[in-house]
Amino acid sequence: EGGKLKEPVILRSHGGRARAICSGDLHIDVAFIAASAADDYGNCNGSLGDSAFGALGFGYADAMHADKVVVVTDNLQPYPVTPISISQTFVDYVVEVPSIGDPGGIKTGTMQITKSPSRLMMAKNVVKFFAEAGILKDGFSFQAGAGGTSLAVTKFLHEYMREKGITGSFVMGGITGFVVNMLEDGTIKKILDAQSFDLEAVESMRKNPDHFEVSHIEFGNMHTGGCIVNRQHACFLGATEVDIDFNVNVNTHSDGMLLHGIGGHQDAAAGSDITVILAPLLRGRIPVIRKEVTTVSTPGDTVDVVVTERGIAINPRREDLIEKVKNMNVVSIEELYKKAVSMAGEPKKPKLGEDMVAVVEYRDGTALDTVRSVKGW
Amino acid sequence: EGGKLKEPVILRSHGGRARAICSGDLHIDVAFIAASAADDYGNCNGSLGDSAFGALGFGYADAMHADKVVVVTDNLQPYPVTPISISQTFVDYVVEVPSIGDPGGIKTGTMQITKSPSRLMMAKNVVKFFAEAGILKDGFSFQAGAGGTSLAVTKFLHEYMREKGITGSFVMGGITGFVVNMLEDGTIKKILDAQSFDLEAVESMRKNPDHFEVSHIEFGNMHTGGCIVNRQHACFLGATEVDIDFNVNVNTHSDGMLLHGIGGHQDAAAGSDITVILAPLLRGRIPVIRKEVTTVSTPGDTVDVVVTERGIAINPRREDLIEKVKNMNVVSIEELYKKAVSMAGEPKKPKLGEDMVAVVEYRDGTALDTVRSVKGW
Repeated sequence: EGGKLKEPVILRSHGGRARAICSGDLHIDVAFIAASAADDYGNCNGSLGDSAFGALGFGYADAMHADKVVVVTDNLQPYPVTPISISQTFVDYVVEVPSIGDPGGIKTGTMQITKSPSRLMMAKNVVKFFAEAGILKDGFSFQAGAGGTSLAVTKFLHEYMREKGITGSFVMGGITGFVVNMLEDGTIKKILDAQSFDLEAVESMRKNPDHFEVSHIEFGNMHTGGCIVNRQHACFLGATEVDIDFNVNVNTHSDGMLLHGIGGHQDAAAGSDITVILAPLLRGRIPVIRKEVTTVSTPGDTVDVVVTERGIAINPRREDLIEKVKNMNVVSIEELYKKAVSMAGEPKKPKLGEDMVAVVEYRDGTALDTVRSVKGW
Repeated sequence: EGGKLKEPVILRSHGGRARAICSGDLHIDVAFIAASAADDYGNCNGSLGDSAFGALGFGYADAMHADKVVVVTDNLQPYPVTPISISQTFVDYVVEVPSIGDPGGIKTGTMQITKSPSRLMMAKNVVKFFAEAGILKDGFSFQAGAGGTSLAVTKFLHEYMREKGITGSFVMGGITGFVVNMLEDGTIKKILDAQSFDLEAVESMRKNPDHFEVSHIEFGNMHTGGCIVNRQHACFLGATEVDIDFNVNVNTHSDGMLLHGIGGHQDAAAGSDITVILAPLLRGRIPVIRKEVTTVSTPGDTVDVVVTERGIAINPRREDLIEKVKNMNVVSIEELYKKAVSMAGEPKKPKLGEDMVAVVEYRDGTALDTVRSVKGW
């Protein structure tokens, strides 16, 4: 936003980035891939060694398509290093460094389960919603976000499924210890892991063959024979803003400042049978549910349900769901919007300049929205 | 040879075929990939199920580059099947059939260790040669052929290394139970497996994480960041014929008939530090060591040593080896040729027609030799 970059940034989802690289839209001159174990020919992984960080999901597309591939490691091992996550066939150089980073840093601040009573209630309502919708049965699969409320949903799902004797098929992630717990007690059969969010996930992927590493190509590149998100029964994701057309903003704050990437948001929403957005009506005095999002990160036609502390809104496209969850506190998205406005007033808008700072690309490669420079707030 | 094909066949090595597919030289319209376990989205492997056959090494290049990919399985499992050998992202269709074949057929007739005293002596001499050459030390790696004499070398290598307390780094294959035994007692640290030759290998790859599946791209595609054969200290391979320029024929019989593929012969020979060809002087009354091979399958400049029952010939290019193995019965290849002729006479040549039946392609994509139709013998 400081105007340091001459060209607008292109924001892509995890799956969209993989698609762009595989298709040639995004050309990479040199890829630097950090590995916690590598041999001198380039076979490497993130599973072994003192700096182990788990899945190398981001690295696959880069390794396969960059002009030059440099593996950087602090743990050079005798040939051949296995498991082979990134293969020697893609690697041009291997560089040894004293340290590739601190694995303790993997566990970021967002990895704490929420303690807010209203957020915990929202999380419980998501589980109840899935149960009422009839998808919580053997074979259930899901993807969880890494926010504190999403983690709470995972925990409550675990408790519910265990209590009811339901065995899920797989969890795709962004994987946390909460999901590992589900695998270890048999509540789910498999984990597909493109990014390990904490050290419990790292340890599990190293030890448990049912915790299987996948790439972001497999996770979400829609221009393939099929990506994993298509097989998810549910996902539950956060949002900075949601609008009355169910569009979701995860990129900009309401003051217009660009602060976040898309992550797997677009991909999970598009692929999952039921996409739930967890959002409070307000954050501080700023409405989260609004007439129009500041930036469209994920289009509303891929969002099915918005769960707030004041009720659940269902996308009118999903008449099937509306029918099934009659027993829950279902309200229209407009009602939620009006409640938010009644509490905090119509949100003010940032004063935008003419310069285009970023393009939000959809996962299929089309332009979804733009982010403009901010002159004031 | 019956003239049924309108165009000459192109014979390629395992690595050469992978190279041709990856480069686009060889276009595949539809790839049919048999899998002993698959899900309905195409994730599959050859490790699980009643028809398990082990490594899917051949399938990777095909799956990645064919226009359409059809997975054929007799063991459709719930999504997602792991380990994922061939990924759903490459697969267009999954077809269920009653049976993909009899895994008992994996153990072919060639998988028996030789009982011939002279072949066993040759095998022992290969081990002695490696020892004298100074490569039998910790970190030793090799690839073994699947012929009865090559299997004997593997067995004797195992005994020698175990006795001397030598720990090898890896064995690349075509993997047999003889190699699995080496992994299980710690004589070698890793197996890299592109094709499992017997059920012991299948079982080992399923259970042992140090027995790791690789593709034929990784095995031998020379137009990559590096293939596995380059890291082999030694290989020992069979031959139908060897000539005084160390060229090897594995494709045609001496009557000119085309009966065999190249397998990994070219790749192993080109990559390994020391390439040993195991060949008797005669087979029946037909000289194996001759002035000129009927067909060049593997060029002589990649062959270092020919071990026969009448002595060992070293390629003059390898002066370093000649120096090291002075204690062994080293003779010139011409002497071996003369001995063969003295025993069986100068071999007769097939009468060839004008039609080109096949082209032997080298692993880099250049034409190495041609095979012509046979008019008489």
